[in-house]
Amino acid sequence: MSGCPYFQKKFVSASKQHLKEDENDDSQSGINKASKGGLIYGDYLQLDKIVTSQMLQSELKGNKIHDEHLFIVTHQAYELWFKQVLWELDSVREIFTSGHVRDERNMLKVNTRIQRVVMIFRLLLDQFSVLETMTALDFYDFREYLAPASGFQSLQFRLLENKIGVPQNQRVPYNRRHYRDSFRDQENELLLHSEQEPTLLQLVEQWLERTPGLEEDGFNFWGKLEAKIFEGLGREKENIEQKPASEMKEEMMAELIKQRDIFLSLFDERRHVYLLSTGQRRLSYKALQGALMIYFYREEPRFQVPFQLLTSLMDIDTLMTKWRYNHVCMVHRMIGSKGGTGGSSGYQYLRSTVSDRYKVFVDLFNLATFLVPREWVPKLDPSEHSFLYTAECCDSSYCSSDDSD
Amino acid sequence: MSGCPYFQKKFVSASKQHLKEDENDDSQSGINKASKGGLIYGDYLQLDKIVTSQMLQSELKGNKIHDEHLFIVTHQAYELWFKQVLWELDSVREIFTSGHVRDERNMLKVNTRIQRVVMIFRLLLDQFSVLETMTALDFYDFREYLAPASGFQSLQFRLLENKIGVPQNQRVPYNRRHYRDSFRDQENELLLHSEQEPTLLQLVEQWLERTPGLEEDGFNFWGKLEAKIFEGLGREKENIEQKPASEMKEEMMAELIKQRDIFLSLFDERRHVYLLSTGQRRLSYKALQGALMIYFYREEPRFQVPFQLLTSLMDIDTLMTKWRYNHVCMVHRMIGSKGGTGGSSGYQYLRSTVSDRYKVFVDLFNLATFLVPREWVPKLDPSEHSFLYTAECCDSSYCSSDDSD
Amino acid sequence: MSGCPYFQKKFVSASKQHLKEDENDDSQSGINKASKGGLIYGDYLQLDKIVTSQMLQSELKGNKIHDEHLFIVTHQAYELWFKQVLWELDSVREIFTSGHVRDERNMLKVNTRIQRVVMIFRLLLDQFSVLETMTALDFYDFREYLAPASGFQSLQFRLLENKIGVPQNQRVPYNRRHYRDSFRDQENELLLHSEQEPTLLQLVEQWLERTPGLEEDGFNFWGKLEAKIFEGLGREKENIEQKPASEMKEEMMAELIKQRDIFLSLFDERRHVYLLSTGQRRLSYKALQGALMIYFYREEPRFQVPFQLLTSLMDIDTLMTKWRYNHVCMVHRMIGSKGGTGGSSGYQYLRSTVSDRYKVFVDLFNLATFLVPREWVPKLDPSEHSFLYTAECCDSSYCSSDDSD
Amino acid sequence: MSGCPYFQKKFVSASKQHLKEDENDDSQSGINKASKGGLIYGDYLQLDKIVTSQMLQSELKGNKIHDEHLFIVTHQAYELWFKQVLWELDSVREIFTSGHVRDERNMLKVNTRIQRVVMIFRLLLDQFSVLETMTALDFYDFREYLAPASGFQSLQFRLLENKIGVPQNQRVPYNRRHYRDSFRDQENELLLHSEQEPTLLQLVEQWLERTPGLEEDGFNFWGKLEAKIFEGLGREKENIEQKPASEMKEEMMAELIKQRDIFLSLFDERRHVYLLSTGQRRLSYKALQGALMIYFYREEPRFQVPFQLLTSLMDIDTLMTKWRYNHVCMVHRMIGSKGGTGGSSGYQYLRSTVSDRYKVFVDLFNLATFLVPREWVPKLDPSEHSFLYTAECCDSSYCSSDDSD
Repeated sequence: MSGCPYFQKKFVSASKQHLKEDENDDSQSGINKASKGGLIYGDYLQLDKIVTSQMLQSELKGNKIHDEHLFIVTHQAYELWFKQVLWELDSVREIFTSGHVRDERNMLKVNTRIQRVVMIFRLLLDQFSVLETMTALDFYDFREYLAPASGFQSLQFRLLENKIGVPQNQRVPYNRRHYRDSFRDQENELLLHSEQEPTLLQLVEQWLERTPGLEEDGFNFWGKLEAKIFEGLGREKENIEQKPASEMKEEMMAELIKQRDIFLSLFDERRHVYLLSTGQRRLSYKALQGALMIYFYREEPRFQVPFQLLTSLMDIDTLMTKWRYNHVCMVHRMIGSKGGTGGSSGYQYLRSTVSDRYKVFVDLFNLATFLVPREWVPKLDPSEHSFLYTAECCDSSYCSSDDSD
Repeated sequence: MSGCPYFQKKFVSASKQHLKEDENDDSQSGINKASKGGLIYGDYLQLDKIVTSQMLQSELKGNKIHDEHLFIVTHQAYELWFKQVLWELDSVREIFTSGHVRDERNMLKVNTRIQRVVMIFRLLLDQFSVLETMTALDFYDFREYLAPASGFQSLQFRLLENKIGVPQNQRVPYNRRHYRDSFRDQENELLLHSEQEPTLLQLVEQWLERTPGLEEDGFNFWGKLEAKIFEGLGREKENIEQKPASEMKEEMMAELIKQRDIFLSLFDERRHVYLLSTGQRRLSYKALQGALMIYFYREEPRFQVPFQLLTSLMDIDTLMTKWRYNHVCMVHRMIGSKGGTGGSSGYQYLRSTVSDRYKVFVDLFNLATFLVPREWVPKLDPSEHSFLYTAECCDSSYCSSDDSD
Repeated sequence: MSGCPYFQKKFVSASKQHLKEDENDDSQSGINKASKGGLIYGDYLQLDKIVTSQMLQSELKGNKIHDEHLFIVTHQAYELWFKQVLWELDSVREIFTSGHVRDERNMLKVNTRIQRVVMIFRLLLDQFSVLETMTALDFYDFREYLAPASGFQSLQFRLLENKIGVPQNQRVPYNRRHYRDSFRDQENELLLHSEQEPTLLQLVEQWLERTPGLEEDGFNFWGKLEAKIFEGLGREKENIEQKPASEMKEEMMAELIKQRDIFLSLFDERRHVYLLSTGQRRLSYKALQGALMIYFYREEPRFQVPFQLLTSLMDIDTLMTKWRYNHVCMVHRMIGSKGGTGGSSGYQYLRSTVSDRYKVFVDLFNLATFLVPREWVPKLDPSEHSFLYTAECCDSSYCSSDDSD
Repeated sequence: MSGCPYFQKKFVSASKQHLKEDENDDSQSGINKASKGGLIYGDYLQLDKIVTSQMLQSELKGNKIHDEHLFIVTHQAYELWFKQVLWELDSVREIFTSGHVRDERNMLKVNTRIQRVVMIFRLLLDQFSVLETMTALDFYDFREYLAPASGFQSLQFRLLENKIGVPQNQRVPYNRRHYRDSFRDQENELLLHSEQEPTLLQLVEQWLERTPGLEEDGFNFWGKLEAKIFEGLGREKENIEQKPASEMKEEMMAELIKQRDIFLSLFDERRHVYLLSTGQRRLSYKALQGALMIYFYREEPRFQVPFQLLTSLMDIDTLMTKWRYNHVCMVHRMIGSKGGTGGSSGYQYLRSTVSDRYKVFVDLFNLATFLVPREWVPKLDPSEHSFLYTAECCDSSYCSSDDSD
């Protein structure tokens, strides 16, 4: 920004370009630098396009309304940031899809980029406070000129939902139509494509399924955990039974039974399959096990960054749902609860999207139901189970080719 | 936004367009609506330009660096918001320049728009936290490709400074060159023009000079205030003198003398003229009086919104200075304190701009030095001084023409 | 704060205290200053109480868990700020109850304090991000020690709801019990008392009912507005009827009828009474008229600050509802959706409170449904209707007594 | 908070307490639960102390000023959060001091807690916006009552500075006195003690000195890096020399020489010792090497969390310096630049503390000066250098004793 000296020359350029580009490039680069011209801030950022794209419909219709400019700029800023979110999501998905994630050196990158998405969504929440300086009356003055355009038509937001993994069968219909019907042919294809690509949810699922320690013929986390939990519940039951009869004793026993039921359901794979079919769970049984394993052993060196990643994924879910809710609040203020004139109310539609149906990583939240005391978690013996502090790196030749991105 | 139902039709469109446009327009509007097409979200926001303007220099040079995309998008978002700030500033300056501000009905508009600028700058401060997810090492990977572009070349930021009223003679030189030398001819003209137009500071100054109550042949605020203050100081002196001799008595007397000196300087017009010439004050003597009058009588109906306005102007100054400071902090992290390779250090230059030299409304802050007890403020008699609760509105015919903006 | 020089002496103290306190006070003040002691930062803030009130239950139970400290401090910070919100609410309610609000000089004070509540709630939203650095697993380690305490027992939050005006009959029952059952006798009385005092909603309602311009024998806003709207709808109908038959014509006519129905309902007092009885509206019919009048004439000098006030009241509602939603999100993450072991799920209960039932000023939002084109708003003639730029101030003797608060 | 169901019982309590406490505890726990009483929210948080500690000096002096309450609550909230920051800092310092950090399982804990401090400081920055709703005039009404108390007397803030590692010889003197002179005897001792304990800076320094890979008889990072850099600079020089004579060639050569000088200074230990003595550097030579090694190999599994830690430490520095700057801005607004009546101006004092002198981890920022192209970084061969993906864990018996904190 102002006076930002970021772009100053680095002396290494000649040799570096030498490595990256062909031999003749030096002179080219030389000329480029010699000319007092060179890259200019405004050209680099294509500001001729960015800051000239604010065309007020109200002005076109001969009734220029001051606040429409804010309306346009705010939405453009949202779309700019959506672009950045898609950029980060695509790069993370690429790391997962290409299998680079097996080289655990890439975990920092994955985590940092997901964390960046979190920061962007935090900013987008704050951004509402700017648009809210426009009152319902200011908005009324130009909103008719915008019909029938609708924020529902934001391609990037739909792509973003699809790529993260909002399930198509959980979408709330809008005016009884499929969400893709609001888009033009070319956009429609992009959306369809994004529905068919592996989603972040699916890629995380596959990665979780490979969590070291799940192998039944190895550490066998799931088997060990089941044994430990029911052993613990058994001891607990004995403890309670030894108490003298009292109202409290009955309460404790009732609670214990509830808890046992909860854990019985956790270890019942058929129940999991059923919950998957209803959309109440989204991760495979194996992936769920991996996630819980990472939760319990999060302090082991190999699981520290994976645990951060799971936390960041929940952050994204939470922030997207807060974004939806902030949006609902603003719409309520701008157009009231009656909404538009035709079809279903926009307010009511938006209200219905603020729901766990739209939480992609809902399983990670719900795992909080299955926590147990530290004593019940199967013990690890570092001398035996070295997998928790030895990362897997692929060979150096392979990895070095991945430097640039 | 997603599913945003803002843009839905309002039934009144036909008749309203009837009023605003020519008679034949109905059919036009009819056709527009009949076609299932009509305005589309992406076209309205010109997203074909907005989200396609991210061209990575590193990619052009054959070495695509992931984080350059964030760098571009962040700067574009800054520029989008600068555009909005300029939009608001220009509209406020227009209200002042055209004299519309004399119709006090416009004060809400002025205040709301300045307040909006405050909210935007608050957002821009938060925006740093997104760019800070990029580390110095990530930045190093592509910064050479950006040379010699520099954020110093942000036209809009310089316009913004000029229009608010950063004085040219207070600017810190960058690499010993005039700030306009970094710009192309056409931009240079825009900048020169912005230096010559009335600044927000000057317009606010003129408005403050007209503060009702300053008239020497009327309420004569300044004369009355001077009398009351020195009367108060005199009583104070007597009080102290009656005390028995003590260290504390001497301290109090020393303080009293200091205070009297401060107020003597306040009422010394020649001193004001001197401070103006050195840049330590920026407002005319009369305007300073107006500001202090608004401070003291801020609860009078006619001064409530003007007082809010003065507060918002200080907010803008504070936020711009915080923005500069945040910028310095980020640059320190990104390139260290040594800065670039040639010329003066970017870090040191930016550091020097975080200064009261760049505070435009510095007088409003410094007025805090001249506050006095409520008892010393000249009393107003509502039955006599009706000017404080009777706003000035121009005649209705004039005002109605101002509806649209 | 650190090095904060706020508390430095002001020279005027002697004479000022002279005015405010009795004659002998000078010497007292003298001694106070002479001793090198005087007020000390930590004593002033009672830090011996504030920073020693963090007693970890886990530590008491012999199993100190680090993160419980964060849990305590965060909740204490919430309670500190709730105290401040109550302080502001009580002062505003006092201004309204005492009738001081009739002196329009008090509007700035009212507005500033409500605006401060807005800023506090904004901070409280941000505060969640600190508590969210604690994971579900960290929380699990100590949450059993806290049973059966519950945030439901926050006295100040319930007082705050009551004083703003959350209607008792709209409260969602928790575990099928009245909300006051969770409190001790003395607290119960405070709550009962807060239910019986005039709420902010009721006080704003009374104030809105007195909006100048509503008088049927005066400007008669409501009557004039009704006439203008139906006149406009009539013209609109004629416009549509003149168009050639088409699908679009039918659509427009259908819309027009819907709109007419909406406005018929607005001007139907019996319908209003019915909606009041169901809790869908909260303001009296007269107050609703006042609010709409302020909306339409918000730029008139006398309505500028009242309009800001209505906006701030909506801000409070929005922020409280966002606060509730953020709370829900955090609880989901901390304990999953199954919640506790007995009774209803905490998550589900909290989810149900994120609802328009808890929006106190819901009518102000819904007024957005009743906006009309500027041409339909009854015209004001400044020469005739001076009430819009002449504030009402009470006589000076009365007002001066109100200086101190 | 409201309806927060956190505190619900967990069924496991009986057996868990059994493990942690003595055998007789069960019955105790039984009684506790049986009584309908048990822990109550307000008692747990000691609200009888927290929300009753707001005693207005203005009220004591018979002139109650509404806004003093905000002033008190804001400062108390700051102090509450300072307590939390100290809690986190002490726990991190304890992990370092006790040597637990050698068990790399503790790195997640260290990083999470430092990250939490970051989030708290972010909140504290936002908190200024609440206090800024008080104007200079509101403050004037009660500030004399606070004399001679001063935020300079905040014990916790000074402790915090000392524990992080603000060097005593870099402190700006206030009114020409030692900072500890403003404190009472007991506080003075606490401060002295905190100066003598190992600071976070020193502990991080020791930890960095142990960075695996620094061993001269092992990977010998520093030796390898020096060789690679000067080899690179040599190649660079040859490249330039082969170019035909031109202005640009001379520029490039001049830059190259500058760069070589920078790197010569980096590898000159005596120069480092000199910079240490002047306070321009703070870390030992070995620690500086460790930090740079972590920077360059941040993606290696073993360095991912250490790299995050270094980033968070810079965040703390940046946020504390922003906090100081925000404080300066507020003080300017509240009391003007002239400050108090006696001694040095508070504003000027505070201004001088916004300086790199107070940046504790300034070396981490300045390392950005010493970045080099990825090709110059010594290569690692995973098959040979397994230390980068094999964490060091101590034996299980040792670690398990560390579970609780």
